Amino acid sequence: MKKLSLLGATGSIGLQTVDVVQAHCDSFELVAMSFGRNVQEARKIIQVCKPSLVSLMNKEDSETLQAEFPNVTFMYGEEGLVAVATHPETEVVVNAVVGSVGLVPTLEAIKMRKTIALANKETLVTAGHIVMSAAKEYGVDILPVDSEHSAIFQSLQGQDDKAIDRLILTASGGSFRDKTREELKGVTVQEALNHPNWSMGAKITIDSATMMNKGLEVIEARWLFDIPYEQIDVLLHKESIIHSMVEFADTSVIAQLGTPDMRVPIQYALTYPKRLPLQGTDRLSLADIGQLHFSKMDQDRFRCLRFAFEAGKVGGTMPTVLNAANESAVQAFLDGAITFLEIEDVIERAMNEHQVIKNPCLSTIKEVDLETRKLVNLLARTN
Amino acid sequence: MKKLSLLGATGSIGLQTVDVVQAHCDSFELVAMSFGRNVQEARKIIQVCKPSLVSLMNKEDSETLQAEFPNVTFMYGEEGLVAVATHPETEVVVNAVVGSVGLVPTLEAIKMRKTIALANKETLVTAGHIVMSAAKEYGVDILPVDSEHSAIFQSLQGQDDKAIDRLILTASGGSFRDKTREELKGVTVQEALNHPNWSMGAKITIDSATMMNKGLEVIEARWLFDIPYEQIDVLLHKESIIHSMVEFADTSVIAQLGTPDMRVPIQYALTYPKRLPLQGTDRLSLADIGQLHFSKMDQDRFRCLRFAFEAGKVGGTMPTVLNAANESAVQAFLDGAITFLEIEDVIERAMNEHQVIKNPCLSTIKEVDLETRKLVNLLARTN
Repeated sequence: MKKLSLLGATGSIGLQTVDVVQAHCDSFELVAMSFGRNVQEARKIIQVCKPSLVSLMNKEDSETLQAEFPNVTFMYGEEGLVAVATHPETEVVVNAVVGSVGLVPTLEAIKMRKTIALANKETLVTAGHIVMSAAKEYGVDILPVDSEHSAIFQSLQGQDDKAIDRLILTASGGSFRDKTREELKGVTVQEALNHPNWSMGAKITIDSATMMNKGLEVIEARWLFDIPYEQIDVLLHKESIIHSMVEFADTSVIAQLGTPDMRVPIQYALTYPKRLPLQGTDRLSLADIGQLHFSKMDQDRFRCLRFAFEAGKVGGTMPTVLNAANESAVQAFLDGAITFLEIEDVIERAMNEHQVIKNPCLSTIKEVDLETRKLVNLLARTN
Repeated sequence: MKKLSLLGATGSIGLQTVDVVQAHCDSFELVAMSFGRNVQEARKIIQVCKPSLVSLMNKEDSETLQAEFPNVTFMYGEEGLVAVATHPETEVVVNAVVGSVGLVPTLEAIKMRKTIALANKETLVTAGHIVMSAAKEYGVDILPVDSEHSAIFQSLQGQDDKAIDRLILTASGGSFRDKTREELKGVTVQEALNHPNWSMGAKITIDSATMMNKGLEVIEARWLFDIPYEQIDVLLHKESIIHSMVEFADTSVIAQLGTPDMRVPIQYALTYPKRLPLQGTDRLSLADIGQLHFSKMDQDRFRCLRFAFEAGKVGGTMPTVLNAANESAVQAFLDGAITFLEIEDVIERAMNEHQVIKNPCLSTIKEVDLETRKLVNLLARTN
C-alpha cells in the first residue's frame, strides 16, 4: 500500500488522481490532501478517500468542514499546504496545484525525502535550479505527471542517458492552432477554453492556446532531464497521440503514445517502475485513427514559445518573470481585462523591463514573482 | 573492444554489419566470418577487417582465397560455419545467414555462451522452442537484429514485463501493398523485388511482398519475447517509420521510430545496452515527413500472414513446414517455375498435407524441413 499526499485535489489533475487512487484502492491510500475553494467537490473526496489531514485556502471553510468531519484534521493557507506535503505517513506527494504556490510545499516535501509526482510545472519553471539540487541532495525522485514529460520519462527507461541527442516535445497546437495571428484578434475567452484534445483546467487550456504551456514544458524538461535548451525541440502534432519522444545518438527515436487521458501519466508516476491496468480508457487503435500529422513549430506564430526559450536560455530570474507575467496575464484575459493577443504583449513587456538576477535564492524568486504580478496587473488595468 | 563472428558476411545484413564494425573500429573487431559464394565481396571484407578465420560454401573457393591470404584460416561447409560461430575469441555472433542453415551454428554458439545477434529469423521459426530453452540453460542473450524486433526490444527496455498487453508489429505492405489479388496474377519477379522502403536481399523482399516476412516475424516475436500469438498484432504502416510498438496494461504504448536503415538495429544489438553515434544516416524529421498512415491488416488479402499465425498456433513441426515450403516456393518463383500467387498455394498445400509432430527434436525438424522442400520442388516442377 503506497501512501499519498495530494496537493490540489479538486483541480483537473487532482480529481483524476483521486480516480486512479479509487480504482486501485488496494495499492494506494490518500492520507492527506489540499484544495482551494471547491468545498463541494472536496467533501465528496473526503467521504470516499478518508484522508486524515485536509488543508484548504481559508479558515471559514476549514471550520465548516471540521464540524462535518470531526475525525479529520483541517488546516489552511501555506502552513496547511506544507503540512499536507510533509505528512509523516506519506511516501509520494502528488503536486497538482496550479501556479508558483506549489514551490514551497515541494521543497519541504523533498527535505522529508518524499517522492514527488509533479504536475505543477511552475515549480520547475521558477526554481528549477533550487528544486533539482535539493532533490539530488536528498536522493529524491521527481516523477513527471505532465503527459509530455511522462512520455519522455517512459521513453528514457532502460536507455543509455549518455546517448541522448534530443528531446522532442509534441504540441497539439491548442484551441487556435489553425487560426492566423490576424484571426486571433477577436477571439473570446469561451473560444480559448475549448481545447480540441485534452480536458484540462482553465489556466492550462489558455496556456495551450498561446503555446506558453509548451514553453513552460520546455523549461520543465530542461530541469527534469538535465538537457540544454539547444537539444529540446517542439513539434506540432495535432492528434496528441505521440505524447513526446527522445532521439538518441544512433538516430533511433523512442516515443510514448496513447489516447489523450491524463490518468495514464498520473498512474505511471504512482506505479513507477511498474504498471497497473487502467480501466475505462480506450486502447490506442492507430488503424482506426488512420493518420498522424506533424509539422514544424512556427515561433513567430506562437510568440510565447519563443519567449519561453529566450527566458530559459537567459536563466536566473527571467523564467520567474515569464511565468508570473503569464499567470497574471492569463487571469487578466479570463477576467476580460485584456485581449488574447495582449497576453503576449504584456509578457514581452515584463521580460523587457526586467533586470536579470543570476542564480536567485527562494526569497529573490518570490520578490521578483510579486513585482512582476504587480506590474502586469498595472499594465492590464491601465490597458 | 568487442570481438565478433559474422555469419553471412556478404549478404545485405552482413555488409551493413561490416559497415558498422568499420565505423567503430575502436569498439568492434571482426575475428571470424562466413559467406557463401560471393568471393569478390568477401575478398574486400577480409582485406579491411582482417578476420583470423573465414568459412565459405565450397572447397575450391577456400583454396583460391587461402593462396591469396596465407595468414587467414579458411574452412568450408557446415563445419566451417560452426567453427566461425564458436570461435574461441568471439563474444557476439551476428547470425545474418538466410534460411534454416543458420540453426545449427546458433545452437553451437549458445553452448559456447556467445551472445547471439540474430538476423536469421528462420532459426526461431523452425526451432524456437529448442533455441530459447538452450539460451535460457546457458544464460545467453538473444538480441534481435530485425528492425521490428529490435524496435520491440528497445521499447521493452526498463519496462514492466509483467504488464505487456500486446506487441504491435508494423508492416510496410511490401512491393504490392496497393495491388488487389486480381492484379497480383501477372506480377513479375522484377516487380516483386522492388521494395518501397527497405533495401534488402531477394528472399526477404519477396517475403515482404507476400507478407510471409511479417508472418515469420510474428513467430519470431512469439519466441524472442515469450508472448502468446493472441497478444501479437500486425498493423499496416506504409512509411516504415514506426518500426514496432509495445502496448502495456495501462494502455500506454512505447514505440521505436527512425528512418529505415538496418544499421540502426544492427548497431544496437552490438552496443546494447549502450548506444553509439551512427554516421551517414538521416535523422528522423517527422515535420518533413508530415504524415504517418496506419490501417488494418487484411489476412484474406495477405494469406501468407494467416498461414503463419495458423502454423504458429498449431506449433510442433508446422512452423518448420511453413518456413521450408516458403523458402522453396520463393526460390521456385525467382527461378520462374511458379507465379507469385502460386507461392501461397504451394505453402497451403504443404501445410495441409503435413501430419504435425509435437515438440520435435533437431533431427525431426531437419527431416521435416527436407521432406517439405522435396514436396514443394515436386509441386513446382509438375506445375
